[in-house]
Amino acid sequence: MRLYIGLVHYPVYNKNNEKIASAITTLDLHDIARLARTYDVKKFFVITPLDDQQELAERVIKHWTRGYGSKYNRHRKEAIKLVAVVPSLERAVDAVAETEGEAPLLIATDASRQENRSISFEGARAIIKQEQSVILLFGTAWGLDKTFMTMTDHVLEPISGRSEYNHLSVRTAAAIILDRLVGRY
Amino acid sequence: MRLYIGLVHYPVYNKNNEKIASAITTLDLHDIARLARTYDVKKFFVITPLDDQQELAERVIKHWTRGYGSKYNRHRKEAIKLVAVVPSLERAVDAVAETEGEAPLLIATDASRQENRSISFEGARAIIKQEQSVILLFGTAWGLDKTFMTMTDHVLEPISGRSEYNHLSVRTAAAIILDRLVGRY
Repeated sequence: MRLYIGLVHYPVYNKNNEKIASAITTLDLHDIARLARTYDVKKFFVITPLDDQQELAERVIKHWTRGYGSKYNRHRKEAIKLVAVVPSLERAVDAVAETEGEAPLLIATDASRQENRSISFEGARAIIKQEQSVILLFGTAWGLDKTFMTMTDHVLEPISGRSEYNHLSVRTAAAIILDRLVGRY
Repeated sequence: MRLYIGLVHYPVYNKNNEKIASAITTLDLHDIARLARTYDVKKFFVITPLDDQQELAERVIKHWTRGYGSKYNRHRKEAIKLVAVVPSLERAVDAVAETEGEAPLLIATDASRQENRSISFEGARAIIKQEQSVILLFGTAWGLDKTFMTMTDHVLEPISGRSEYNHLSVRTAAAIILDRLVGRY
């Protein structure tokens, strides 16, 4: 499996539907890194163009992989070492291309269905199973910018729970999506 | 469906395997309440015997259901109104028995397999589908106390991702478990 994930902090929407760069939530780094480790994801890209936010993420990584945290909790270290901070999606794509020898397929996720561009869980699962390199992209704040999404190859169909409610946190949405796409259940 | 969930703050283990009452993580309330709303859970019990922690949880609920938060984000209100703070599992059981006219079945969750008492995801899914009242219990901190677990009817098999790593946050574990048990996918 050559699955990568990316947590996008720019360009995303704020509550008023304006394009912004969101702040890092350190808990997202922990929760999603642990998911990455659980589901054999090769690398977890934290994508932010903001210098101070990159520094914050790097400090978290350093604490848990080399600092006090690495001794306090070795399980956390195993997860956090999968995190790579990059300024843009392009840099994540470059990194994967260099490792895998091929450009990765980009699959965005969204809480709403994107007509014509939507791929089913089954379809995405099949692509990943064929050993195609894939970066699965998650948006922070109020979700990925629509123009940004048009640069991806597919947009994954939204999670349907048992109701029309579609306001999960990115942490829990990432958990459900990874389990549906690559869980052994 | 007559599914309830409970987030247990006592008795749970700390890192040194000692029995403790854990502090409320307000983010857990938000994330798990949104999951409850997504998956048509009837009520989300926050179980803590500590007065100050009960007050903290009640303040969060009040802010989002009646205070400023209820106007700021109505989606959050819809989720948070499912939360009920109770001092013990017994009180949660009583509340369900009163609503449903029958004692609920108790299914604990754990990151490790509990020999002899383990129920599969398929088995638990079938029970819930039969309209049996169920409280699904999640432990905070380092997980549910073993003696506490013997008071439940079943312990759900652990989540198997794609690796032996079993150190997810309770938020993301709850997401995966609810999706496996009652997701329509």
